[in-house]
Amino acid sequence: MARKTSLSGFPEWLPEERLVELHVLDVLRETFELHGFSSIETRAVETVGHLLRKGEIDKEVYAVSRLQEDEDAGSPKGEDQLALHFDLTVPFARYVVENSGYLTFPFRRYQMQKVWRGERPQEGRAREFTQADIDVVGDGTLPFRYDVELALVMIDALSRLPIPPFTLRINNRKLAEGFYRGIGLTDADGVLRNIDKLEKIGPEKVAEALREELGATAEQAAAALELASIRTDDTSFVEQVRALGVTDELLDEGLAELAEVVGEASRRAPGKVVADLSIARGLDYYTGTVYETVLVGHEHLGSICSGGRYESLASTGKKTYPGVGLSVGVTRLVTRMLSQGMAVPSRKVPTSVLVSLVDEESWSQAQDVAGQLRARGVSCEVSATAAKFGKQIKYAERRGIPFVWFTTRGEDGALAHEVKDIRSGEQVPADPAAWAPPAEDLRPVVRAVAAVGA
Amino acid sequence: MARKTSLSGFPEWLPEERLVELHVLDVLRETFELHGFSSIETRAVETVGHLLRKGEIDKEVYAVSRLQEDEDAGSPKGEDQLALHFDLTVPFARYVVENSGYLTFPFRRYQMQKVWRGERPQEGRAREFTQADIDVVGDGTLPFRYDVELALVMIDALSRLPIPPFTLRINNRKLAEGFYRGIGLTDADGVLRNIDKLEKIGPEKVAEALREELGATAEQAAAALELASIRTDDTSFVEQVRALGVTDELLDEGLAELAEVVGEASRRAPGKVVADLSIARGLDYYTGTVYETVLVGHEHLGSICSGGRYESLASTGKKTYPGVGLSVGVTRLVTRMLSQGMAVPSRKVPTSVLVSLVDEESWSQAQDVAGQLRARGVSCEVSATAAKFGKQIKYAERRGIPFVWFTTRGEDGALAHEVKDIRSGEQVPADPAAWAPPAEDLRPVVRAVAAVGA
Repeated sequence: MARKTSLSGFPEWLPEERLVELHVLDVLRETFELHGFSSIETRAVETVGHLLRKGEIDKEVYAVSRLQEDEDAGSPKGEDQLALHFDLTVPFARYVVENSGYLTFPFRRYQMQKVWRGERPQEGRAREFTQADIDVVGDGTLPFRYDVELALVMIDALSRLPIPPFTLRINNRKLAEGFYRGIGLTDADGVLRNIDKLEKIGPEKVAEALREELGATAEQAAAALELASIRTDDTSFVEQVRALGVTDELLDEGLAELAEVVGEASRRAPGKVVADLSIARGLDYYTGTVYETVLVGHEHLGSICSGGRYESLASTGKKTYPGVGLSVGVTRLVTRMLSQGMAVPSRKVPTSVLVSLVDEESWSQAQDVAGQLRARGVSCEVSATAAKFGKQIKYAERRGIPFVWFTTRGEDGALAHEVKDIRSGEQVPADPAAWAPPAEDLRPVVRAVAAVGA
Repeated sequence: MARKTSLSGFPEWLPEERLVELHVLDVLRETFELHGFSSIETRAVETVGHLLRKGEIDKEVYAVSRLQEDEDAGSPKGEDQLALHFDLTVPFARYVVENSGYLTFPFRRYQMQKVWRGERPQEGRAREFTQADIDVVGDGTLPFRYDVELALVMIDALSRLPIPPFTLRINNRKLAEGFYRGIGLTDADGVLRNIDKLEKIGPEKVAEALREELGATAEQAAAALELASIRTDDTSFVEQVRALGVTDELLDEGLAELAEVVGEASRRAPGKVVADLSIARGLDYYTGTVYETVLVGHEHLGSICSGGRYESLASTGKKTYPGVGLSVGVTRLVTRMLSQGMAVPSRKVPTSVLVSLVDEESWSQAQDVAGQLRARGVSCEVSATAAKFGKQIKYAERRGIPFVWFTTRGEDGALAHEVKDIRSGEQVPADPAAWAPPAEDLRPVVRAVAAVGA
C-alpha cells in the first residue's frame, strides 16, 4: 500500500478498503452463527494480574491509567492496574468464570474485537489488530470430538472468503511430549520452544540448541528433528511415527487424537488439512490439539488462524473449564488481501442511486423518491443542490454511484421519472414504487481477484 | 439488572443481551448504508495533543503506555503521549485531514466503535461504551440542507428500533448567540453553559448565575430564560421569538435555519421533532444546528443521540472541513432497553436445529445432515455424544434450540429423518435437502415488548 498511516502499527482503512474488511467480518460472523456460536464481547481492559497470570511475558502489554490523575495516587498499580487485552482468550476465560451461572455448557461463542500488543510493528504484525475467535468450553469435561468440529467450522468459514487456498496444519502436544519422553527428553516445553524455531533457523541450529541447552544427545536431537519432519495429508503419519520405534502411553494417546482430527477433517474437507508434526505454537498453553493456518504461496506471512485445545482454559477453586478454539488474525489477513489486491469491492460506496434535483424546490419531492426506493432496500442519496445535471452526474461518477435518478414535471403537472445507468449511459423511464437495480448493483460486493499468473 | 460486572463502568453482556445490542447495531448499520453512508473505523488511540486540542478538559482521558517499559524512558510523554479516544468525532477529524486526498467530498461516513472516558460510572454513563456516529463533511463548504437530511436519517434509524417513542430536540447556536447579543449579553458561551443547567438546577438558580457570573441585569436574565422556555413542534417558535422584540442579524439567520430543519423534519416525520430553545449541548464545539434526543418517559436518562453542525470539524493550513453529524449512545440505549425489558430476543442462541446422534458412529453422517441444512441458511449444531435422546433433547431445551433432528437407519439400511419441534412436541418426517424451519424460527429475532400499562 502506498498510503502511510500516521501512527506505525495502527492501520486505518479507506472506505473501499474497509468494505473488504467488513466482508471478511460478515462472512466469519455468518458462518459462526450457522454453526451455532453466540456472539459476545468483553471489555477492552483487564487487570494486569489477570493478563499475566500465565506468566506470558512475551506479550507486550499496554497499560491504561487516567491522564488527569496524580502520578502517585488514584489509579491502581501492580496487579490491579488496568491494561488493554492482548488476545481474546484470556478475557474470555474470565468471562466464563464470572458468568458461569448464566451460561449453558458446552458454551459456544464467537468474539470479534480489537486487541493490542506493544510489539515492534512489521509486515503481518500490528500494534492494534482485530481477531475473530471461536471457542467451545465445557464445565468440567469437553468431548474430544469438538477438536474435530472446530477445525471443520474454521475450514467452512475460511473457504467462504475471497482468499487463496489455505492449509490447516494440525499437531498434538501429547504426541510430541510423549515422543520426547519416550526418547528420554523430559523438558517437553524446552524442546517445543526450539522446534518452534525450525522454519526460522533450520535443523542444524535447532539440533545444536537441543544439545547445548537441553543436554540432548546427538541421537535424541536427531530423533526430535525426524519427528518434526513428518507431514502428511492423511493419517499415514501414524505409521511414520511408529517406524521411529518410540513407545510411550502419551504418544499413543496423541497419535490417536491427531489421527481422529486429520482423518475426519481430510475426509470432509479434502486438501485443506495436513498433519504437520513441526507445529509447536510457541509458549501458548495448549495441552492437546494445536492448529495453525497458512495461505498457500504466502507461508512467510505466518499463520492467519491458530488455536488448540486447553485442558483448563479457566478454573476456580472447585471447577475447571476445558476448551478448544481457533482465532483468525483478521487484520493480518486483510492487510495481505489489500496489499496483494486479492479482493476488490464492486464499488466504493453503499449508494446505488443518486436522486438528482431539477431545481432547489424539488429537494423534498426527491426525498420522497429516495424513501420509496429505500423501502425496497435500495441505497440512495439525494443531491444537496440543484447544480446542472452534468455536475450532479459527475458527483455520482466521482463517488462510484452507478445510477442517477431524474424527476421532471411535465406541462400537465404530472411527474416523469427516469433512471440512468451512468456506466452504459442508458436512460429509461422508471417507477419509484417498483424500480430496483440489477441484483449485482444493489450493494457493493467484494469479489476475489484471480492472482496474476495463477 | 441483577447481574453485576466485575469492573464498574465496563458493562459486559450475556449472549442473550448481546443479541439485543447486535440488533441495534445491525439496524443502525443497515439504515446508514441505505442512506449512502460508508463505514470506517479509526484506531482506538490518539495523541494527547490531538485529543485535547479544543481544550476539552471536561473529558476524563485514559492514557496508554507500554507496561514493561522504564517509567522515565521510551513511551512518549506530554502532547505525544497516546490515549484512548473519548468520542468518534475527534478521531474522525484527524482521519479526514490525513486522508483528504483519497476521499470524495462531501464525505458521508458512519462509525460504530467503543470509546472510553474515566468518569464516575452511573446510570446511563459508562467508562467504556459504544457510539454510532454519522457525519457528512465538506471540503471548504457544506450546504445547509445536510442539517435537515442528517436529522431525517437518524429519525429513520431510531424509528426502526424496538424502543419507546422518541423526540429529537433541535436548537440553533446562531439563534441563541444572536438573541443574547441582541439583549446585550456578549459572552454567549457563558450564557449557554448556564442555560445548559436549566433542567438540573431550575430557572431561579440559572437567573442568579447569569446575574452574578456574567453581570446580567434581571431583565437580561429573564429574557434569556424566556427564550429557553420556547418549545414548539412546528415553526411557530419563530413568531414566539419575534414577540420577544429582539433584533439581530445572527438571530435572523438562526431562526431561518432552525425553521428550515424543524419545518421539513416535522412535515416528513410528524411528532418526532420539536424546536427546543433550551438545548445548549454544553461545551461542545457546535456553531449552528444542535440536536439531542430523548426517549419519551425516560427523559432523565439524558440524550440517547446528540450532535450538531460545526463550521470547522477540522482544518489544515489551507483548508477547512465543515460538517454536521449525530452520535447514538448505543451502550446507554441498550443498557436501558435491557434494564427495562423493552426488547427481547426470540431465543438465546443462533442455533435453530440440534442434529442428534443415534450412536457414536453416526457423528459424521449427522455432520452431513447439518451441512445440508446450513447450505440453506439453517443454523445447526451436532450433538457431541450419543447420549439418550431424552438427554439430547434436554440439552436443546437448556440452550433454547427449537428443533431436534433424528436420523435412524431402517432394517433395509435406508436412513429415515424426522424433526421435532420441542416446544409443541410435534415430530414429523423431514428431508435434509429440503426442510427449513418456519421463517420466524430461522434466526433469533429481537422484538419490542409493550410497556406495562402502556
